[in-house]
Amino acid sequence: MSRMTGRLIGVGVGPGDPELLTVKALNALKSADVIAYFARPAMSAMRAGSSRAINGAEELPLLYPVTTEIPKARDAYRDAIADFYDVSAAAVSSYLDDGRDVAVLSEGDPLFYGSYMHIHVRLSRRYPTEVIPGVTGMSGCWSAAAAPITQGDDVFTVLPGTLPEVELERRLADSDAAVVMKVGRHLPKIRRACERAGCLDRAIYVERGTMTNAAVMKLTDKLDMTAPYFAIVLVPGWEERR
Amino acid sequence: MSRMTGRLIGVGVGPGDPELLTVKALNALKSADVIAYFARPAMSAMRAGSSRAINGAEELPLLYPVTTEIPKARDAYRDAIADFYDVSAAAVSSYLDDGRDVAVLSEGDPLFYGSYMHIHVRLSRRYPTEVIPGVTGMSGCWSAAAAPITQGDDVFTVLPGTLPEVELERRLADSDAAVVMKVGRHLPKIRRACERAGCLDRAIYVERGTMTNAAVMKLTDKLDMTAPYFAIVLVPGWEERR
Ligand SMILES: C[S@@+](CC[C@H](N)C(=O)[O-])C[C@H]1O[C@@H](n2cnc3c(N)ncnc32)[C@H](O)[C@@H]1O
Ligand SMILES: C[S@@+](CC[C@H](N)C(=O)[O-])C[C@H]1O[C@@H](n2cnc3c(N)ncnc32)[C@H](O)[C@@H]1O
Repeated sequence: MSRMTGRLIGVGVGPGDPELLTVKALNALKSADVIAYFARPAMSAMRAGSSRAINGAEELPLLYPVTTEIPKARDAYRDAIADFYDVSAAAVSSYLDDGRDVAVLSEGDPLFYGSYMHIHVRLSRRYPTEVIPGVTGMSGCWSAAAAPITQGDDVFTVLPGTLPEVELERRLADSDAAVVMKVGRHLPKIRRACERAGCLDRAIYVERGTMTNAAVMKLTDKLDMTAPYFAIVLVPGWEERR
Repeated sequence: MSRMTGRLIGVGVGPGDPELLTVKALNALKSADVIAYFARPAMSAMRAGSSRAINGAEELPLLYPVTTEIPKARDAYRDAIADFYDVSAAAVSSYLDDGRDVAVLSEGDPLFYGSYMHIHVRLSRRYPTEVIPGVTGMSGCWSAAAAPITQGDDVFTVLPGTLPEVELERRLADSDAAVVMKVGRHLPKIRRACERAGCLDRAIYVERGTMTNAAVMKLTDKLDMTAPYFAIVLVPGWEERR
């Protein structure tokens, strides 16, 4: 006799403020048997926020491997990360095989630059799967800054701060509005690219948007060049041209 | 003696499914004295969904002027729309002057191609203002399609379907992942642009994402060329390259 498998649920938990979880996400967390999450320090803080809603579910932390000694460009790094996602997906699937529903927490929106999708592509063809969208980090940030980001016929570009400087510059210059994610140690490069693309004056720097220790400032007022994991640069398209 | 003014609150109500409102949005709707909304048929349906949470607030519909006889490119059209936003902002401000809190509903996220920002730029310097981010229509659509949209170093572009065909083609070809919003009568042009940019095979068409009558299909399977107001084209960046 075949038994029912559990359901895989990718749950977007929003940009940080626990009140920015959706009703659907809260309900999914309440009814899940297992709550899986990728463990990074900031993420655990977010989990703590949302965990008020969670009663009695088993926790399944998926712990990123320590790869700081391996250069990011190397095959060895890519292999270590791919292995990690394989092992994580196997851990999740063992619960699903057991007939238990697993909610995988995801910062912001699960399918937008999220780790959840590494689980999704490995398991969604084998198990009933649902994805619950969330408020993205960037929406949280431009709302915290009260900065209208795009309107009308604006072309809007999302750029990872990991891109080469010339590439950032070219694309910033060719967009009406933009967001640069994954800022971290790339901040000096991003600032130079904004300057050369002519958008430094209107660029806004946001760290930990919607979290209790959030900071919002003009990028030109960000004097030190250190940025945390949760940091973003906004280039609003619209204000200038209204 | 000066009296306190009310607060302006831009409230993102998400892509359509009433469960995709955030806890913060629900609380704001519960405590607002006045609920303002731009009246378009689809929007009223969304309001009906969220209105279960609303007890006793006064409603303030902001009715778009009928401008169908005026060509969109004309100054007369722009003037009619600008007048409409001026009048709408004045209506909202009369309640704020009265000390009443006004929540302005906004499809998806308020500051992302939303009508709310026309109120925001007219009033946010004069009244205490808060913007509550929401799940965007595009997040709702790629979650409904269970399609991972962006990962890693992907460059992601949001394009209004109103752009000229060559512009759409150029930008689609120059992006790892993309979304085309405001599809409507521009669908045939968008399809041609996808084909010429080499991304037609992986393009997905979603209408009314997360609403009860949602439809998701490959763009190549969309045989008729009519699309409703709530329609979007997704070009996932990642699936192809994993
Ligand atoms: C791996 S991506 C995850 C994105 C997430 N899935 C989302 O929908 O926003 C992480 C990046 O998102 C940005 N980010 C997410 N939340 C943020 C917040 N609350 N404040 C500032 N940046 C944030 C930062 O640039 C960070 O490096
Ligand atoms: C004026 S923009 C408003 C965007 C909104 N502020 C947001 O954050 O998604 C309207 C466009 O958003 C897209 N859209 C919004 N919600 C959608 C949904 N549920 N399904 C499909 N398209 C949607 C459509 O392309 C539509 O033409």
